This record gives sequence, C-alpha cells and structure tokens, in this order.
Amino acid sequence: MHDHDAVSIIRAKRDGNALTDAQIDWVIDGFTRGTVADEQMSALAMAIMWRGMNRTETARWTTAMMDSGSRMDFTDLPLPTVDKHSTGGVGDKITLPVAPLVAACGAAVPQLAGRGLGYTGGTLDKLEAIPGWQADLSTERMRTILTDPAIGAVICAAGADLAPADKRLYALRDITGTVESIPLIASSIMSKKIAEGTGALVLDVKVGSGAFMTERADADELAARMVQIGLDAGLRTVALVTDMETPLGRTAGNALEVAESVEVLAGGGPADVVELTLALAREMLLAAGIDGIDPADRLADGTAMDRWRAMIVAQGGDPDATLPTARHSDIVRAPASGVLTRLDAGMVGRGSWHLGAGRSRPGEPVSAGAGIEMHAKPGDRVRAGDPLLTLHSDDEARLARAGAELASAWQVEDTDAVVLRPLILDRIC
Amino acid sequence: MHDHDAVSIIRAKRDGNALTDAQIDWVIDGFTRGTVADEQMSALAMAIMWRGMNRTETARWTTAMMDSGSRMDFTDLPLPTVDKHSTGGVGDKITLPVAPLVAACGAAVPQLAGRGLGYTGGTLDKLEAIPGWQADLSTERMRTILTDPAIGAVICAAGADLAPADKRLYALRDITGTVESIPLIASSIMSKKIAEGTGALVLDVKVGSGAFMTERADADELAARMVQIGLDAGLRTVALVTDMETPLGRTAGNALEVAESVEVLAGGGPADVVELTLALAREMLLAAGIDGIDPADRLADGTAMDRWRAMIVAQGGDPDATLPTARHSDIVRAPASGVLTRLDAGMVGRGSWHLGAGRSRPGEPVSAGAGIEMHAKPGDRVRAGDPLLTLHSDDEARLARAGAELASAWQVEDTDAVVLRPLILDRIC
Repeated sequence: MHDHDAVSIIRAKRDGNALTDAQIDWVIDGFTRGTVADEQMSALAMAIMWRGMNRTETARWTTAMMDSGSRMDFTDLPLPTVDKHSTGGVGDKITLPVAPLVAACGAAVPQLAGRGLGYTGGTLDKLEAIPGWQADLSTERMRTILTDPAIGAVICAAGADLAPADKRLYALRDITGTVESIPLIASSIMSKKIAEGTGALVLDVKVGSGAFMTERADADELAARMVQIGLDAGLRTVALVTDMETPLGRTAGNALEVAESVEVLAGGGPADVVELTLALAREMLLAAGIDGIDPADRLADGTAMDRWRAMIVAQGGDPDATLPTARHSDIVRAPASGVLTRLDAGMVGRGSWHLGAGRSRPGEPVSAGAGIEMHAKPGDRVRAGDPLLTLHSDDEARLARAGAELASAWQVEDTDAVVLRPLILDRIC
Repeated sequence: MHDHDAVSIIRAKRDGNALTDAQIDWVIDGFTRGTVADEQMSALAMAIMWRGMNRTETARWTTAMMDSGSRMDFTDLPLPTVDKHSTGGVGDKITLPVAPLVAACGAAVPQLAGRGLGYTGGTLDKLEAIPGWQADLSTERMRTILTDPAIGAVICAAGADLAPADKRLYALRDITGTVESIPLIASSIMSKKIAEGTGALVLDVKVGSGAFMTERADADELAARMVQIGLDAGLRTVALVTDMETPLGRTAGNALEVAESVEVLAGGGPADVVELTLALAREMLLAAGIDGIDPADRLADGTAMDRWRAMIVAQGGDPDATLPTARHSDIVRAPASGVLTRLDAGMVGRGSWHLGAGRSRPGEPVSAGAGIEMHAKPGDRVRAGDPLLTLHSDDEARLARAGAELASAWQVEDTDAVVLRPLILDRIC
C-alpha cells in the first residue's frame, strides 16, 4: 500500500473531505506518470463534480497541473507581460484585435491559444484562415517577437509540455461527463495561463446561451475562482463577466471574424466588438501597470494596425492576402417589418458549426470561409425583405439544413420596446 | 452520435435523473462489448454513488448485468431449488453446513460461491482446505449432483459466463472508490444469483464491524433492495439482517471453519452457528415451499452429515482426510479474571487475514491452516491466564504482529452485566 493510494484519495473526496496538498500532489503526479489509472481519475473527477474543491484545494490542484510540465518565464523581458483569456463565445474574436492593440500601448502580450471544439471556435482556427500563417512557434521565437519593438504581441499554439496532465485530464473529462465542474474548469484554464509565464491576466468569462456558462451565478463563481487562483499564484488577475446571449459583432466563422477584426483595427467595426476590445485592453494595461495611454487612440492612429500586420508577418502570414470565402451562400430575410428583438448566440453558434466553421472531433479540419454574417443585431429596425443573415458553406446541402435550424434563432416583432442587456455585466478582481 | 451516447447517460445520472430502461440496456451492452470505455463506466459508477438508482432502475440494471452472460436453468429438476447468499462476515461458515442440511430436508441447493478478497474470507477458500476438493464443475455435473437423491447440494465456482459485465464492473469499482453504492451492491449480488437459476433465495445481510455494512440502516436498505430485485425477477426472496459485531462461532480461518462446520453437522458446534444455520435453513425451506420438516431433526439424525460427506466426495474431496494445520501457533491469555465483554469481529477478521487466511489481491494463494480460534465469546466468564485466542500461521513473524494488533480486539472486565445483541436483527420479505 502507498501512503496515498488512489482509492483512498477518491474515497476521501467522495465522502466530502477536502484533499490535502500531499494527496493532490500525489494523485496528479501519479496520473502524469501513469500509476494512477484513467479510470481512477475519471471517478475522482466525478467525485469533484459532486463535492467540489475549496480555495486551497483548487490552488494546489492548479499548481500540481502546472508542475506536470514546464513553466515559461518572461520575467527578463524589458516590458511588462499581460495576457487575456476568454472562456469562449460565439463571434468572440477579441483576442485578434486586442493583442496587437495592447502591444501598441507598451505591454508584451504572450498569448497562447487553442483550436476550437464544438461551436465556440478557436483563436488559432481563425488566424489559420490567413494564407501562410503558422500557429507553432518555439519559445525562442516567441521571445524574439515579444521583444521586437515593432511587434510585442504573439498568438500561438501551446506546446505539448504546457500542463500536459491538464490536457490528458481534459480529454478524459470530455468523455466522462465531468466537464462542468467549476473548480476543474478554473484550474484547467489557470494552470495553462500561469505556466505560460505572463505577469498579469485578464479573464473574459462569458455567460449566456452561446457560452459554456449559461447562468450568471455560475459565471460569477468561475470568475471569482480563477481570480483567486491567479492571485494565489502571484499573478495580477482580473475578470470581466460579459454577455453571450447575443453573438459578439456581426460575424461568426473563421475568415469572417478575421475580416471583422481588421475592421476594428482600422478604426471601424461593430460597436460591441469595439467596446469589449477597449474594455479588455484597458483592464490589461491596468493589470500590466501601464497608465496614461488610451487604447482608443492607438486604434485611431493606426499603430494597433501596424502591430497586427507585423505580428501576422512574423508568423509567416500575409496581412494583405485575400481571405478565403466559402463556395456557397444563402440569405435569410426578414419576413415582416419590425424590430429584431432576439438573436440567439447558442443557435447562431450551432448554425455556424453545422456550416463547417467548427469541428466535432479534435484534429478535424475546419472550413476557413464557412460561417454566418449578421446584418442586424437586437434593437435594429428591419423592413420586410431585408437580409438578416447570410450563411456561407463549402457544402450546399448544409445551407438549407442550417437555415432551417436558424429559423428559431431570431425574432422580428412589431414593437418599440427592446430590452438590451449591457455587454459587460461584472468586474471581479 | 448514437441515440444513447455514453456521455449523455453519465450526464443524466450526474444531474440526478433516473435512467431509462433503454439507457441502462445500452450502456451495459456497450460496456460488455467494449464500446463504452472503462473510464466512462467509472464516472457513471461515481455518479450512481452520488445520485443513487430507484427501484425501477436497479431492477433493470440487474437484468442487463445478468443478460451480459448466460442464465442457468434448473426449472426441470424434480425438486424445488433454493440458494443462500451472505454478504460476508468474520467466521461466517454457514454455507458449509446449511447446503447439505437443506438438501437433507428435500430441496436442491445449487450454491455458486466465490473466493474471498479482504478479510471476510470466501466459501471456496474454506472448502479448498479439504484435500482433493475441486471448486470447478460443469453445468452438467452440477445437474447430476443436484438430482442425485443421496446428495442434492453443490457448492461450486461461478463460471466465466455468469454476469461477466458485473465481474468487470466490480473490478473497476474496486479501484475507483465506488464499491459502497447500495444499488450497485444489490444489483451485483442479485444479477449473479438470478443468473444462477435458483427458484428461491435467502439472503443473510451482515451488519457490524466485521461486515461490509457497519450501519443497521444501510444493511436494512441493502436487504430491502435485494428482496425487491428478487421479487421483481420472479424469485421467492427473503432476507435476514444478522449481527456481525462479534465473529460467528469460535473459529475464523479456512480449515478451522471447515472443522467447526463438521461439528455442527455432527450435532454439536457453537450455539450461534447452530442458531443461524437452523434459522437460514428454515427460511430456505419456507421459500422453497417445503414444510413439515424441522432441519434440527436432520442435524440430530445424521442425514445432513451424510449429505455433506456425499457432496464433498462428489467434488473429489475426502471428508475423512486430516485437515491442514498451520506450522506455528500462539496463545493469547486473559490478563485478569472477569467477563469477556467485547470481541470485535472486524479486528479478528483483520488479524486472521494478517495471519495468512485471506488475500490482498485476486489470485493470491491463501493459507489453509492459518486463522484464529476463539476460546471465549462475549458474556463468557474467564479466569486470569485462561486462553482467549489461539493464533495460527505458517509464518512465525506474523504471530507476534497479529497478536499486537489483536490486543484491542477484546476486553475482559470485572462486571456481571453484559449487553449481548441478538444474532438475528431483522427479517425482510
């Protein structure tokens, strides 16, 4: 018998006890080395869903996950580092404009990102719509880009050695119905973000039909958990809880979202994308200890756009290349005049996924051109026959199917009163 | 996606819903065929520990487990069939005398038994202490023995095809901290007992420090669950809940318990073993629809002993052979005169296990001669220096270790008042 055998640890959590530091270290180390079986980790994950983990346990769990791999270190950079993480939403392309924008304001932004699974899309999938752009960089190359005074921002794939135990646990949770545990979600995100070596972190926790969290209380709890973990690990951390009942911006899909991001960097773009980009950039600068600079000025004066172009070029991409488009498209029109009172983020997300913008299985290719353009957003007045949505897909048969699914995603009513939720709901620090 | 994919079934249970018949059939069939992963079954088992299963679910789960293998059928036998199952206790050798005794009263007893894991011991381990005795029989041979008017009882190993999904699930539960789920325990026992093809079943649910269930309420619930499942499957089923705070009889260990069983069959033996043997035999006869026969007469007139001898011979054993003894022994004596007020079943069980009578791992050999003789039972008056326990082991070093562990297993006090629990606590039918 071991001092801490796996069964006794599972039983302790199952019976509602807090795990000790030694138990957490032992079980995650064993899981990393293969002496704690996947079956045991699955049962433990379910026991954690049942009983939860307190602040001390969650902090230790995060550290142990982080320690399963190597930790990057950017403390020697001449600039303060800051990163942003979103829990994922439909049309959420904010990482694309915000990373070069914050770099233009004087911080270094080492942004590790992922590919999408399910309908919320992945930042790397979006950037890969840009011809030539490469997601994989060595740490040395990251460092070179971050210290380049003309760039200062990098968005790239996390290496295999970044919290590898978390990667394996996430794959297990995905097949065992144990994804929806707030302490496990919080520690999974934070273990990677802390290992990434950033000095400060701004979290965007989405809540609504198009987000992982559909309840405000759950989103607030997740945000508070992550902020606590960050602070416990010595990371300046703040979270915004933001609305995801309605898609963000006017596009959902890979190349479509890149184009919209470029509009924002050019000083235009949809109001909600601009609002959230600026709000997150301000939080990132505050967390990085940079003041006296208004990021809105950096959008207006073109310096954010310069950083974007240099960042794309540094990763092999052509910022002037024509973005791919899908082979087929179809327009959904307003059946009557009135006001668009609802545009459901979850349904738009699933529609975009079915059109080919997302994947069902890790490793599956995604379509760069597929997705949905939204010509009206809630509160907009439309006339009968006006286009509401344009659907894009490489597969014509998917257009009709997605169109039928999207029929209940929106509502046009003869009304003057529309209740619009604010975009930024809570700030947790 | 399948109609019933494993994740949606796990999530349904995790969220507190009752599983449908179709979901249960699908998940157990998939587990049997390997399309539902062990990781998924482990998470589901933990979700069942959390949320439980209702009567309908438990009945269906049992049937699905049973249907993962083949079902034996003894309905064509000329005699009614009846079987007994104990949840396991220290010194519980009742199967040995009760099977031939009930056969002597006119029922056929097809008793499938197991090997022990942990300290409660296994019926097959005990019988294997008899030179030549073989646990493995073909169904055809079982049938021949059951129809032999001079035998009528058989105690043998369950074949690999008896509820194979339950065997695999039990092995998973053992390593994932999910053993202690009442619906899973109930369905595991009952799937095997129903598959065994008996027409009636008497359950002996043990409660106390030497049993799996230490709380009376849990034992009652387990008993009620199993009786319900049996009745739902058309099996005449009754349960006794019996005390296991104190070991049963005066021996714990393989050959030692065989010898004590033979004493009972010869009309002697400890009062508690005789009481429980007769109580269970009466329940078995009642369940089998046999009345007008007092099993006490069959012990007194030697016919139960005749059946025992024939049963042992039919499986290659020599009922007259000298039983193996351990190489070393040691006596624990009363330090003062008084009354033995406590003899803890759990501690005696662990002591006997450490002496070599039990195994830590499936497949490990057990010592036939190892174990503990108890010279006094609670309520007995002892004088200073009287032997309380004799410890037997093949390994001399284990004697001292077990002796030290057993120091707190008993108590001799200068008192006249001893509270003794009744042996039979509840009858559930």
